[in-house]
Amino acid sequence: MSITAEPIARVMLALSKLPGIGPKSAQRLAYHLLDSPDMEIEELANSLLELKGGLSLCSICFNVADRNPCSICADTHRDAALLCVVERPSDIPPVERTGRFHGFYHVLHGSLNPARGIGPDALRIRELLPRVRSGAVTEVILATNPTVEGEATAMYIRQLVSPCGVRVTRLARGLPFGADIEYADDITLGQAIESRQGF
Amino acid sequence: MSITAEPIARVMLALSKLPGIGPKSAQRLAYHLLDSPDMEIEELANSLLELKGGLSLCSICFNVADRNPCSICADTHRDAALLCVVERPSDIPPVERTGRFHGFYHVLHGSLNPARGIGPDALRIRELLPRVRSGAVTEVILATNPTVEGEATAMYIRQLVSPCGVRVTRLARGLPFGADIEYADDITLGQAIESRQGF
Repeated sequence: MSITAEPIARVMLALSKLPGIGPKSAQRLAYHLLDSPDMEIEELANSLLELKGGLSLCSICFNVADRNPCSICADTHRDAALLCVVERPSDIPPVERTGRFHGFYHVLHGSLNPARGIGPDALRIRELLPRVRSGAVTEVILATNPTVEGEATAMYIRQLVSPCGVRVTRLARGLPFGADIEYADDITLGQAIESRQGF
Repeated sequence: MSITAEPIARVMLALSKLPGIGPKSAQRLAYHLLDSPDMEIEELANSLLELKGGLSLCSICFNVADRNPCSICADTHRDAALLCVVERPSDIPPVERTGRFHGFYHVLHGSLNPARGIGPDALRIRELLPRVRSGAVTEVILATNPTVEGEATAMYIRQLVSPCGVRVTRLARGLPFGADIEYADDITLGQAIESRQGF
């Protein structure tokens, strides 16, 4: 017999399926919710229930959006010459937060992974070509993750769009801000040396 | 105009009201939920909506419970001589996890805080006396938090139950496991010296 009441245990179990929430955090959150106003709990529950219903993919960039085209693709103040290719919709907010990019996006919805049967047709790669060929784009920035799969995806796309005559770039590799050289991993430090910049 | 679709922003806002979940975690969780099976999202939402409905306070120990008496108070294998007084229902699972206590509990639902107008009558202190006087209890363990309010609450209860002729103890103070003496705070180290134990 569990010492934790079933309704609390149920919330804990559901919360502990989320990334980064272990059993202890789940318990703390469940007891916090127990002390929260009913309105706050209901708002969280209802926002969850209505999360997917109001969303679809933008038919231009394939970002998840509550309108079509999405608010980014509909923004006429952006620079149509720059197209940033990302793996996931969740990669867009961090790029936006930097304030350093004012172009448009293209969301692949994953990365190439032959071992798991994910080839180019499983991603939104085909839809990228007409956008690059449209004439407005002068640079494609490959912002895939610095992982084996992200690298393979970037290389595949580079080969594909190079004949279009646009500049193809990728995010810089090097030491992250605040890093300690003594504890940097070999690959990162190696890339930082390889890509050393004039100073 | 926000670049994040409204249904996602709404989940992020609701999640970011929980303790320990900042804007970045809320975003990560929201996008994770977006990729989760509908069933998992619905189970989380429904468990939240049904959290409080199935719960009430145990009429003996005042723990939140899905039955009355709660599963702990109904457990005949526990030692009725030991009564552990805690501030909150969420303090019970950690004490249980230690496996070192097999008695019963009494939940105060807070601690004395005159500055915020919380006196003895706002807590379940009055209900403690008949339990201590019942004859079965030989030791009351005060497991209030090692804070100013928890201390004041423990001292108040000690004065109250001492005339009942039971032993009154509190959780030991000292260095936490794995601590570094060099970095221990003055109060903790002072208490560890003050309460030094035979070895």
